[in-house]
Amino acid sequence: MKKNKEKGILIVISGFSGAGKGTVIRELIKDTRYAFSISATTRQPRVGEEEGVHYFFLTREKFTEMIGKNEFLEWAEFCNNYYGTPKKYVENQLLQGKDVILEIEVQGALQVKEIFPECVLIFITPPTLKELQHRLESRGTEEISVVQQRLCRAREELTYMQDYDYIVINDILEDTIEIIENIVVAEHCKMSRKGYIIEKLKGE
Amino acid sequence: MKKNKEKGILIVISGFSGAGKGTVIRELIKDTRYAFSISATTRQPRVGEEEGVHYFFLTREKFTEMIGKNEFLEWAEFCNNYYGTPKKYVENQLLQGKDVILEIEVQGALQVKEIFPECVLIFITPPTLKELQHRLESRGTEEISVVQQRLCRAREELTYMQDYDYIVINDILEDTIEIIENIVVAEHCKMSRKGYIIEKLKGE
Repeated sequence: MKKNKEKGILIVISGFSGAGKGTVIRELIKDTRYAFSISATTRQPRVGEEEGVHYFFLTREKFTEMIGKNEFLEWAEFCNNYYGTPKKYVENQLLQGKDVILEIEVQGALQVKEIFPECVLIFITPPTLKELQHRLESRGTEEISVVQQRLCRAREELTYMQDYDYIVINDILEDTIEIIENIVVAEHCKMSRKGYIIEKLKGE
Repeated sequence: MKKNKEKGILIVISGFSGAGKGTVIRELIKDTRYAFSISATTRQPRVGEEEGVHYFFLTREKFTEMIGKNEFLEWAEFCNNYYGTPKKYVENQLLQGKDVILEIEVQGALQVKEIFPECVLIFITPPTLKELQHRLESRGTEEISVVQQRLCRAREELTYMQDYDYIVINDILEDTIEIIENIVVAEHCKMSRKGYIIEKLKGE
């Protein structure tokens, strides 16, 4: 299929912890049509983390200055550190025609939708919460209390799901990736994004 | 990909005469996921036309009775004959989980959208009106005046295009078919159609 020269689409992906969205996104961004939105943070880089690859590492002063200038699509503070999505990076990628993938939790996603209504919100879920519990437990890396916390968080997130545009059940990884790619193709054909074609035809 | 057991989607396809929608639809309906919506008409069957395959052939009395009972998704009168889309046939196919393809001109399509807002309107267009003219002329079967009439009609239809959900540029047939299939997959993942999953997860 032809590569589009149009502006890209901001694709916001959320999902329960354990739904497999990390794997899905890693697969998707192997395709150079996509750009992965890089977050900014004030926390210290961990070993192996690179500036502009894993995060944009900023000082608190710089971060708060950017908040003041409204330069984030969304931001939040966790454990005394700021985390946010710089607008400029996303906009530059979109202007280059890249579809930008932003992985973010539900409240951040709805913030983004508010100031960027043309973005597409996709929620990835396992087929059942029982399956989610099974996946979390079988990782074997989490204590039972952590699994319980994550299931509890999943139940909270259910109340936000209805504000998403699409829901994708992550049962078989290849299917999930194909479905998300289908959604992106479809979104590129939306009249709200392709209205310029009518003008072009009218102009002939 | 798994066959869905959900209700199907009504996919309304329109496009300029000469845009190639007939070929696109013939290819699509080779897949048994789709059902083609069969129109009803009061005109006489032509040689080779079969009842329930090409049309449902009805008497004027039966047709007007069905209009009175609101049994059409849309209907119109051309050259002293009635043509319409029977609701019941479409609804039966949708309930069986088939995605129903309805090929119809723009005014009929917008009538359908009004009484069946969950349907999906797709407009198929060649890349340019010049290309449309070229396709119409190269058929060699139409007189120049007919080509001019069709181009004139295309210009009228442009004013209705903005009310469609999707616009698909039919440049390469295989791409067009793939794009429409992508749209159908995406539409099946719309939160407005998949809301029941949230209820299911909440119920766990």
